[in-house]
Amino acid sequence: MSRDPVVESVLAELAAAVGPGHAEPGDSSTADYSHDESLTARPVAPAIVVRPGSTAEVSEVLRVAAVHRMPVTARGTGTGLSGGSIPVEGGIVVSFERMASILEIDTDNHVAVVQPGVTLDRLDEATAAAGLVYPVYPGEYSASLGGNVATNAGGMRAVKYGVTRHQVLGLEAVLAGGDVIRTGGKFVKATTGYDLTQLIVGSEGTLALVTEATLRLYPRAEHQVTVLAPFATLDEVTTAVPRIVDSGVDPLILEYIDILTMSAMRNHTGLDLGIPPEIQDHALAYLVVILEGRIEARLDDDVSRLGSLLADLGALDVYVLPPRAAADLIDAREKSFWAAKANHADDIVDVVVPRAAIPQFMARVAEHAASNGALIAGCGHAGDGNVHLAVFQPDAERRYAVMRALFEAGMALGGAISAEHGIGREKKRYFLELEDPAKLDVMRRIKAAFDPLGILNPGVLFDPEPGA
Amino acid sequence: MSRDPVVESVLAELAAAVGPGHAEPGDSSTADYSHDESLTARPVAPAIVVRPGSTAEVSEVLRVAAVHRMPVTARGTGTGLSGGSIPVEGGIVVSFERMASILEIDTDNHVAVVQPGVTLDRLDEATAAAGLVYPVYPGEYSASLGGNVATNAGGMRAVKYGVTRHQVLGLEAVLAGGDVIRTGGKFVKATTGYDLTQLIVGSEGTLALVTEATLRLYPRAEHQVTVLAPFATLDEVTTAVPRIVDSGVDPLILEYIDILTMSAMRNHTGLDLGIPPEIQDHALAYLVVILEGRIEARLDDDVSRLGSLLADLGALDVYVLPPRAAADLIDAREKSFWAAKANHADDIVDVVVPRAAIPQFMARVAEHAASNGALIAGCGHAGDGNVHLAVFQPDAERRYAVMRALFEAGMALGGAISAEHGIGREKKRYFLELEDPAKLDVMRRIKAAFDPLGILNPGVLFDPEPGA
Repeated sequence: MSRDPVVESVLAELAAAVGPGHAEPGDSSTADYSHDESLTARPVAPAIVVRPGSTAEVSEVLRVAAVHRMPVTARGTGTGLSGGSIPVEGGIVVSFERMASILEIDTDNHVAVVQPGVTLDRLDEATAAAGLVYPVYPGEYSASLGGNVATNAGGMRAVKYGVTRHQVLGLEAVLAGGDVIRTGGKFVKATTGYDLTQLIVGSEGTLALVTEATLRLYPRAEHQVTVLAPFATLDEVTTAVPRIVDSGVDPLILEYIDILTMSAMRNHTGLDLGIPPEIQDHALAYLVVILEGRIEARLDDDVSRLGSLLADLGALDVYVLPPRAAADLIDAREKSFWAAKANHADDIVDVVVPRAAIPQFMARVAEHAASNGALIAGCGHAGDGNVHLAVFQPDAERRYAVMRALFEAGMALGGAISAEHGIGREKKRYFLELEDPAKLDVMRRIKAAFDPLGILNPGVLFDPEPGA
Repeated sequence: MSRDPVVESVLAELAAAVGPGHAEPGDSSTADYSHDESLTARPVAPAIVVRPGSTAEVSEVLRVAAVHRMPVTARGTGTGLSGGSIPVEGGIVVSFERMASILEIDTDNHVAVVQPGVTLDRLDEATAAAGLVYPVYPGEYSASLGGNVATNAGGMRAVKYGVTRHQVLGLEAVLAGGDVIRTGGKFVKATTGYDLTQLIVGSEGTLALVTEATLRLYPRAEHQVTVLAPFATLDEVTTAVPRIVDSGVDPLILEYIDILTMSAMRNHTGLDLGIPPEIQDHALAYLVVILEGRIEARLDDDVSRLGSLLADLGALDVYVLPPRAAADLIDAREKSFWAAKANHADDIVDVVVPRAAIPQFMARVAEHAASNGALIAGCGHAGDGNVHLAVFQPDAERRYAVMRALFEAGMALGGAISAEHGIGREKKRYFLELEDPAKLDVMRRIKAAFDPLGILNPGVLFDPEPGA
């Protein structure tokens, strides 16, 4: 096979940097490196795949890439939903699969120090052994921490613990030219120059490559109770949410599931929650509340307070789920993206709005679905205003119209386009069309401040500069 | 009095923008605009003081300043401790005293929307009325939210709630050229481009002028208990801290006070905690733990668990303080800076280290005090690793040596120069000498991306660019 001689020569330099077994041409790599899990993104094979084993090797890779002006896309386990880890043609994929060590579980300072390739399930195992927990729970436990940091991953527990951004206390990162910096540390407070940690978190690989993260851990609560409440209308569910947050029971998870999504979850996973048919027939939406605690008696007391509150708020009934059914429900909820995919959803939305604006947002969703001939099913992290929608509209033009209308509706209510999936390549068009040009301009200048050559994940967030 | 004709002409333009009563020459302004509360900073009178009444007026002020390349320094109530709000000669002070409205207390979304001139005590009053709390407690309640955002103010409650950064959900800010942007919103999660909110928080007025902040509120806990535990050694106190955090009692405040500071507090405020002399004689350090709760029985239970734990950890005794004594103690602790000032401390330090590294750090402090002939007294937010030290060494050269040694010791333990006071003008020399040049370089490029003319608070964080 004949290849571009520049690619051949870069490949040789990279092989020298990381060892010959860890740099290969894209056309001999597995197709895994060409895509993530987004529904709409076109796979792109990179020119080169490189698997560095250390920060020094990442630094050398970025130095070589800069010399040859070759685009670089970082990759964890590829579970993203917005095309953020899809490379550009002719580019280099830096895969972190060899940098997957948990470097430290520090029980005195309650932090973990991890390499980017560590997956959430491995971190959960390690923290559990120390009686601690890393609380971010984006639903896909095979996701890697590097990807979580790049997309500021969220998930169901954000109502109690916040998202990835709130757990990342420090980073080691490699800048575009190969310089290695360390930001933050094992502390929650610092005002010592600009907060580079927070700037890099959520920047989707466009500012720097993260090679190590210092993450906040919490004492692990031993006890958990899952409460399911069916309601006759979605509106009652979303209206109940601020009152539950207000009540002080401090929910770990506060999710709503609409009837279409619940039924897809049932079909996809065989979920059976034992809800009597007469209730199921009247329930148009469900609220799931999980409480956790270290002291069982307090938890029981909170559950009974929550039960009364839910009844007052109009729940058709209140079920405290047995552990197995609870686990099945959360598992099914985590997999609701896969249910949507299996049902051939055409695109997905993860808009965030102020949590009290969810009812208004859902009313706009229904209008836009109707006027654009789309079917829209949803569930969401109701406690933090993050609404997940599966959009069924096969026609690309009409789908664009309804997606744009949904984003505009969310922004008009004071929300943002993406709560946790990120902009990536797949929501970039909407982002560039709808975001304030003055903000886009500042963001482009920040991008240029970090990456003057435009080689870090070009095409994500922004269109590549002409000539770059 | 004859003035620079350029200043006269800018003054006329600014008076036209904000109204003639709200723009005045610096030499007819009160001296208040020339200083903050830092111990070492030299007061500087600005050329012009302007008091805008709206975001549109701030925008116009920045437009005029850009045209004339005049430096702009934002000012709240001037309670800073690092010279961050001291203007430069020939510059403009933008005082936010007229933009001091609480725009909204949103009880459904648990947020407050405030203008920068709102003080912490006014916000506390307004949130209390709604059963909510803004939990940042930097010890000076006359401080304004704008200044708190600029310095990422911290304080005693960071161990439970984090610092200002963790409460700021969104901002309205005016960029150097006069463009107004809105960042974030009434939600805790978003991945929609770079997090400009978090970048502007803690940037000490060098990137943008904040004209509105959306702040996170929490249900207000009705009950509070203050526990005081004297220990025979400081080492035992600091060693106890991680164990208390581990225990799950979730302290609101976790402070240590050394014997010198306790005695200065006693002398400064007449504090009497009713500790028997035989205990006082043996106590070299005190731990203060405040627990809060919404349910009194749980709180009582936590207090008794904490009491046993403290006894196990070597406390000489454990006192549950009566409410009045508790309030006096915290009040005295808040005023410990003033006690240090009254005792003629020559400088203050607010280093942060990993909380488990406090004992090592304090050992280094003792060494450096001895070898530099300095007296160093301290107290600190032990729960989050933030150590406050008053340094007594009148000789400037020797003081520089000991201060630098303390910062180096903190950084060597994985800490940072300033936890919450900021770098400002007064710690800039140490920051520029000790921080990684690659990070300083990125920060300077970020600064230039926001403020290409270098007119936003020049001389803070960085030395002004030559010619700027």
